[in-house]
Amino acid sequence: MGRTSDARDRILAAAQSLIESRGYSALGVAEICKAAGVPKGSFYYFFESKEALALAVIDEHWSRQRRDWSAVLDGDGEPLDRLRRLFEITEAAQRAGQQTCGTVSGCLFGNLTLELSNQAETIRVRLQEIFDAQVDMVEAVVAQAGERGEVDVPDTRDAARSLVAQLEGQVLFAKLFNNTGRLDALWANCLALLGARPRQEAPARS
Amino acid sequence: MGRTSDARDRILAAAQSLIESRGYSALGVAEICKAAGVPKGSFYYFFESKEALALAVIDEHWSRQRRDWSAVLDGDGEPLDRLRRLFEITEAAQRAGQQTCGTVSGCLFGNLTLELSNQAETIRVRLQEIFDAQVDMVEAVVAQAGERGEVDVPDTRDAARSLVAQLEGQVLFAKLFNNTGRLDALWANCLALLGARPRQEAPARS
Repeated sequence: MGRTSDARDRILAAAQSLIESRGYSALGVAEICKAAGVPKGSFYYFFESKEALALAVIDEHWSRQRRDWSAVLDGDGEPLDRLRRLFEITEAAQRAGQQTCGTVSGCLFGNLTLELSNQAETIRVRLQEIFDAQVDMVEAVVAQAGERGEVDVPDTRDAARSLVAQLEGQVLFAKLFNNTGRLDALWANCLALLGARPRQEAPARS
Repeated sequence: MGRTSDARDRILAAAQSLIESRGYSALGVAEICKAAGVPKGSFYYFFESKEALALAVIDEHWSRQRRDWSAVLDGDGEPLDRLRRLFEITEAAQRAGQQTCGTVSGCLFGNLTLELSNQAETIRVRLQEIFDAQVDMVEAVVAQAGERGEVDVPDTRDAARSLVAQLEGQVLFAKLFNNTGRLDALWANCLALLGARPRQEAPARS
């Protein structure tokens, strides 16, 4: 990730906040610098372009999110409990964002996928890598649950992709309706998509 | 929808195509007029602002899509067959778009939700109405399947929302990976989310 400094961190934090609230295309470098409290010359010292900044924001966000996902998914607990924790931390993060900003800001990667993936090839490739990595992490847990006979899926990769797709879809509606309650369905839907038998939460499907 | 003319239709068609390929924020009125082959004065004769144009593009697209969804979902066939047709026409539409543009353009409403919903309140409200109408249409079919004992869901509204969320999530990934094959999972996932017993496609879950 190269050099770091207080100014660089301030630019990254301001850019992430602005991208989350207003999208990428609508932003100008001058506005980002103003929000970060740094002169425009500093910007180009750290980033060669607005696109380079977007990639750095994406990498920074994924670095934090991967650590959070890993702490939950790579633990020692029961596989399905770990998956449930993933949805809980997702809902908690969206709720925290809503309390800070007044609106649910959604998933930075999903937002940029729909805004930019057909325009900026470097950003598309980075987002593909990140979502593939998310699917890898989820798939490992699905496979562990499969080995224990707790889920019934024909293909663990497809199943993991469907779980991440359901997550992105529900986060989209949480953002549109500014309602984190839309995320309440994630766990039951995860069980359904995995052909899993719910344990305590609901009576077993006959 | 007010007055129509050839120029208005050309502006709408150019705007939809540009919004699908580049998003809304990155576009300027001059560029839209150039693509439509109309003078800038014409634009402001028909639309008072770029946001008014976006709303007209959304309404026009939903008018066509609602007709297509209605033709499939409100028919006389078996409820689950009608739901399956919905996913088939969605995949066909994305494939056709990919053949025309070279890339999967995704769902116009989903794209604008993630790009704009926290910036333009009129657009947010319109998109909420459209997605609520989609959920209404899907819910009616889920309820019919429920009356026949073909699905097992605790709440038809939540189930319909989850189906539309799964659709948006998978379309997001079809766009990111420029691969309509990502939509192949929709039908099996629909059955799983509805607690439905697949008929011919796969062995019944034990």
